[in-house]
Amino acid sequence: MRGLFVGRFQPFHRGHLELARAVRAGPRSPELLIAIGSAEQAYTWENPFTAGERFEMIARALAEAGLDGVRVVPVPDISRHALWVRYLEGLLPPFDLVYSHNPLTQLLFERAGYRVRTPPLVRRARYEGVQIRARLARGADVSALVPPAVAAYLEEIEGAERLRRLGPPRSPGRPRRGR
Amino acid sequence: MRGLFVGRFQPFHRGHLELARAVRAGPRSPELLIAIGSAEQAYTWENPFTAGERFEMIARALAEAGLDGVRVVPVPDISRHALWVRYLEGLLPPFDLVYSHNPLTQLLFERAGYRVRTPPLVRRARYEGVQIRARLARGADVSALVPPAVAAYLEEIEGAERLRRLGPPRSPGRPRRGR
Amino acid sequence: MRGLFVGRFQPFHRGHLELARAVRAGPRSPELLIAIGSAEQAYTWENPFTAGERFEMIARALAEAGLDGVRVVPVPDISRHALWVRYLEGLLPPFDLVYSHNPLTQLLFERAGYRVRTPPLVRRARYEGVQIRARLARGADVSALVPPAVAAYLEEIEGAERLRRLGPPRSPGRPRRGR
Amino acid sequence: MRGLFVGRFQPFHRGHLELARAVRAGPRSPELLIAIGSAEQAYTWENPFTAGERFEMIARALAEAGLDGVRVVPVPDISRHALWVRYLEGLLPPFDLVYSHNPLTQLLFERAGYRVRTPPLVRRARYEGVQIRARLARGADVSALVPPAVAAYLEEIEGAERLRRLGPPRSPGRPRRGR
Amino acid sequence: MRGLFVGRFQPFHRGHLELARAVRAGPRSPELLIAIGSAEQAYTWENPFTAGERFEMIARALAEAGLDGVRVVPVPDISRHALWVRYLEGLLPPFDLVYSHNPLTQLLFERAGYRVRTPPLVRRARYEGVQIRARLARGADVSALVPPAVAAYLEEIEGAERLRRLGPPRSPGRPRRGR
Amino acid sequence: MRGLFVGRFQPFHRGHLELARAVRAGPRSPELLIAIGSAEQAYTWENPFTAGERFEMIARALAEAGLDGVRVVPVPDISRHALWVRYLEGLLPPFDLVYSHNPLTQLLFERAGYRVRTPPLVRRARYEGVQIRARLARGADVSALVPPAVAAYLEEIEGAERLRRLGPPRSPGRPRRGR
Repeated sequence: MRGLFVGRFQPFHRGHLELARAVRAGPRSPELLIAIGSAEQAYTWENPFTAGERFEMIARALAEAGLDGVRVVPVPDISRHALWVRYLEGLLPPFDLVYSHNPLTQLLFERAGYRVRTPPLVRRARYEGVQIRARLARGADVSALVPPAVAAYLEEIEGAERLRRLGPPRSPGRPRRGR
Repeated sequence: MRGLFVGRFQPFHRGHLELARAVRAGPRSPELLIAIGSAEQAYTWENPFTAGERFEMIARALAEAGLDGVRVVPVPDISRHALWVRYLEGLLPPFDLVYSHNPLTQLLFERAGYRVRTPPLVRRARYEGVQIRARLARGADVSALVPPAVAAYLEEIEGAERLRRLGPPRSPGRPRRGR
Repeated sequence: MRGLFVGRFQPFHRGHLELARAVRAGPRSPELLIAIGSAEQAYTWENPFTAGERFEMIARALAEAGLDGVRVVPVPDISRHALWVRYLEGLLPPFDLVYSHNPLTQLLFERAGYRVRTPPLVRRARYEGVQIRARLARGADVSALVPPAVAAYLEEIEGAERLRRLGPPRSPGRPRRGR
Repeated sequence: MRGLFVGRFQPFHRGHLELARAVRAGPRSPELLIAIGSAEQAYTWENPFTAGERFEMIARALAEAGLDGVRVVPVPDISRHALWVRYLEGLLPPFDLVYSHNPLTQLLFERAGYRVRTPPLVRRARYEGVQIRARLARGADVSALVPPAVAAYLEEIEGAERLRRLGPPRSPGRPRRGR
Repeated sequence: MRGLFVGRFQPFHRGHLELARAVRAGPRSPELLIAIGSAEQAYTWENPFTAGERFEMIARALAEAGLDGVRVVPVPDISRHALWVRYLEGLLPPFDLVYSHNPLTQLLFERAGYRVRTPPLVRRARYEGVQIRARLARGADVSALVPPAVAAYLEEIEGAERLRRLGPPRSPGRPRRGR
Repeated sequence: MRGLFVGRFQPFHRGHLELARAVRAGPRSPELLIAIGSAEQAYTWENPFTAGERFEMIARALAEAGLDGVRVVPVPDISRHALWVRYLEGLLPPFDLVYSHNPLTQLLFERAGYRVRTPPLVRRARYEGVQIRARLARGADVSALVPPAVAAYLEEIEGAERLRRLGPPRSPGRPRRGR
């Protein structure tokens, strides 16, 4: 039995790790596939870290937590929602259930016949990636929000500095990139 | 003689049908090509229905209205505006005039030498797709705004439920998809 | 009930028309969708005619043959076979059965649960598109192989001249285009 | 020695020309590559002019200013920021330093080991492309903001009329294109 | 320390498994990344199996062999060779050395500064994927060429039947697909 | 007045240079645009050199020959032939005539209304890129076939070694890349 957990993990935070732990500790202890979505994106405010960096931070956090039975797979976006589930089925080994908070993900997998589980909302607002990115960008501490291994890795790759330079999105009408 | 009417038809509404009827009833009664734009898009707030679903709702509405001489063609977007007219010329059988309210469509076809007609504005605000989608999403009645066959088809595919789950776009800075 | 017939129609020939007539004349007389594959291709030896030109030649041939209940839909290729059926389902109105001689098409639709019918092989070798293109390129008569309306249309667009200039593919190692 | 200056040049204005002149007049007088970014974009509010039109306006402005040693290269966008510098290295002849005001451009080139120079901010607000486009759209004079050759070229291609018709972006939630 | 082994694994055979075992048993026992190339390809003679199927067969073969410390990552092709190494660096966690028999792969990674190791050629001809596919297509036994878990999985997904239907490529000039 | 000369320039050889010289020396001495086609291709047998490398070799050869009034523009391929002329018109400054030996290029530009000139065939067979690449790959001298500046540049970037490693295409059915 195998579960699928799709996210962008910008960055991988404690809420993500708690979900992985809960799945592995649950009944029948399914193997877990963590699919890193928008894998082709990086160096934007929404997606500051490359898929490879996100892969590394997840691998370190899982190792630190002693969690095994978890596979990490970067998944580039496909622009067509109607094909998305079929696309994932083609890229990933077979899976049986899907974990997601996201209404669109839930809708698409349900229509394809999958069982979708909504993980308990572990202080979701607090752990939202956008909040963590905003804290990083203004130099605030995030050690309560991400696993220690991720905090260390973010220092290693100077993640806060990257976010500070990418900056938050400006108001509409003002393009973010001068290119 | 053949006319081209490009739209996204999310959904196909009474304003669209009235235009088709007016064209076919007009002098010289040109054959009409209805091009379903953004055909690759679906399951978003702007484009909730697949091209196939839009094709089906248009086909049913035309049959219900007894309109013949109309062809329906799904057309995926091409990202380069400067190539758009040439792209349509390559996908579609030849056409002579173009019906559009849209300033960009008008500009591009005029530059390519086409005659562009602006259809009479039949209570446009009321019939705008975005208003109809918003009504569907909040469970309001849309039977005065879409042809009966479309209303029935939307029930059949649970269109209101889909829109409710896709939700309206959130404010800027908050991404719509948690993926 | 609706049938799907996918081909490239380079050009639309008598074998294609006979299949369409057989489907429409058959029991339950399903509506027929003719999907023009590789719609984005044109001006190559394999795909000399644009989708729009192919659309026009099919429309004229059907009109000449007095066949109604047939819809023509250009369909650009998608590079991923594993997504192809799902992609067609998103572009086209619903269909129930599929007509094809092609092993890959048969395989993909069968795996997706469709009934696939192999049309009777009407002098297939003779009608193969590649043979007709070769005849056109060397200036030979094709009027026994394509419907009269198609023969006339090919003259109209100087199809033989186009094929002569595109030429047959050269031997491997010699690229076809000097660009 | 060769410098790279990346911009979208919608349109090419006096600030751009001053930078080019300063580079060429500077110590060691490096050859300058002007890369026209978003070269595939046109007929949008952000990118109204084709790369070819932008190429032409830059060529005329440089000729008018008597500036030589400058090469102009249109560069289509690549959607993946992490590959962008490597992509430019593959398209362009070798370069040694990079001129940019843009934080993302600076970040990406610095990470790739390039020296990045921030040009002196010559009345930047005044010369920003978006201001010039807004002036053009409302029929205001831009002759103090763009080189005379550009002003003349914009008249020649009816640039103001194009911007007026493309219009400024509407508020969020209202899509700009009716297509 | 981490090694990268890129292949298409159509299918994963004993030569591949021997390489993985040798790497893991070697000095310093680097973690191994197995990148499944051409991940978007499937249902062709060259690439009959989806990335997901290939992932599954590799996972089962590694489990059967009791090999740990190996990660499997599907990697869609990127059409530009000059960007390929940089693209992999963005998708994958950091790696230090590369295993490959392929001259192009060796060339690209060497130019990017990587150490590239050529694995000992373990009866390479015999184990080549194309030979194994040809045997499968004609119903011959492949159990001496692939790990038992792969042989079993190929039966499970009716791999031989798929290859028989896809058929070997025909001679040039005869397109493989009738679509 | 401006002429367009499209090629892949793998590598830029004496035949190319002679054409450029003839155009510039001709009546009315049109400015010449040299468009480097297949600009996104590199590290293949057909397209071993990046667009940037080809740009550099052309620039050096033109400088060596004292030819001015020539602009070099890398142009990535667009997969759709029917859009190709329109695509070039969008990327390049306006041009009036086109130089080409290639039948497809001639056909497409003629249909778009351009005057196309076939340059005198200057010992074409001898100068064909494929012959020069084959000579480079086997270590033979090419100094009689390419301008001195190109010969020197090929040494500088170890072009012969690259071609030797990329190798000529193998027979059909044997894929060129082991990836």
